[in-house]
Amino acid sequence: MNAPTSLGKRAATRELILDHAYALARREGLEGLSIGALAQDVGMSKSGVFAHFGSREELQLAVLQAGQQRFLEQVKFPALLLPRGLARLRAIVGAWIDWIRAYPSGCVLLAGASEYDGREGPLHDKVAQQQAGWRRELVRTIGHAVENGELRQEAEPARIAFEIHALMLGLHHDAALFGFDEAQGHVRTAFERLLSSYRPEGGQEGTP
Amino acid sequence: MNAPTSLGKRAATRELILDHAYALARREGLEGLSIGALAQDVGMSKSGVFAHFGSREELQLAVLQAGQQRFLEQVKFPALLLPRGLARLRAIVGAWIDWIRAYPSGCVLLAGASEYDGREGPLHDKVAQQQAGWRRELVRTIGHAVENGELRQEAEPARIAFEIHALMLGLHHDAALFGFDEAQGHVRTAFERLLSSYRPEGGQEGTP
Repeated sequence: MNAPTSLGKRAATRELILDHAYALARREGLEGLSIGALAQDVGMSKSGVFAHFGSREELQLAVLQAGQQRFLEQVKFPALLLPRGLARLRAIVGAWIDWIRAYPSGCVLLAGASEYDGREGPLHDKVAQQQAGWRRELVRTIGHAVENGELRQEAEPARIAFEIHALMLGLHHDAALFGFDEAQGHVRTAFERLLSSYRPEGGQEGTP
Repeated sequence: MNAPTSLGKRAATRELILDHAYALARREGLEGLSIGALAQDVGMSKSGVFAHFGSREELQLAVLQAGQQRFLEQVKFPALLLPRGLARLRAIVGAWIDWIRAYPSGCVLLAGASEYDGREGPLHDKVAQQQAGWRRELVRTIGHAVENGELRQEAEPARIAFEIHALMLGLHHDAALFGFDEAQGHVRTAFERLLSSYRPEGGQEGTP
């Protein structure tokens, strides 16, 4: 009768380890994630940690997955409540800026992209898949704005998505080194300038 | 009589170690730079390496300094041959794109900024100083373009410099994960769009 309880306890312990690993990886990067330091942090033995994550790589992959889940929960899912197109794009950009404000110097996903982009193996594949997936989401949302007539027909979603992503990289970079506020102002202005350069003549936001 | 020779030899050995350290740091990041791996790579003992760089931190700082020197030699100095203003800005951006093409997944300076932005200490101070210094160079060059009348008077150099830097971060990111060519196209188009949005009415490039 106690199998469900012990399974639940096991899952809770796994979550606890993962929370600590996520926090460590934010500070030290995924490559800086040491099972020894993590075990000490959680108050377990190293073999206790290995009982939940068979290898360091498995743990690193789980941290990337956890980061992705948190990012989508904070940045994507709330925007899905808004209509497709520009309203949703604005909501995504606003929430993304808030995400960077919360973790200016420690986004596990971006740090992972920078650590593993030039390597081979499961961690590289995971970050490439995450980054490509998120870019596709952006491209799709911008595509809806074009379909709605909120952006001009010749607007290229892939190009606009690249520029928005670049602005967010710039915000991360500047927020961590020089402070969030000035960079946030640059990003919001640039984003509006980017949209207005693709706004249809005489078009109004939300007008199909 | 052999003091100059042995000094020269000592300097050459230091250079050799630094070259290897730079290559290692490009692959593994500055935090991944291990004196043991470096010594093996150069074919020296660890104490031999320590005779040239008193500590790992001293070596990491020297690698950052070497990266800065190479970046300036490839990106800034050739542009100084061109007139101040837009011509020089274009030369900088072109050479910067070439720099990223050469090292898409391994810019020691950017990796360093990402590794140390949220920490304290000499490495943080070094990357913050490098990034602030380079931003000042960009702002100054954009300011010259405004003074020349090549960009409108209300153009804000700090904002434009932020956007150019963000585009380069986007190029780094995409080049390493998805390939250089498409991202390069996005960057060049965005850069031209950025300039033309600040071009004076009826103004021509190079016309004061």
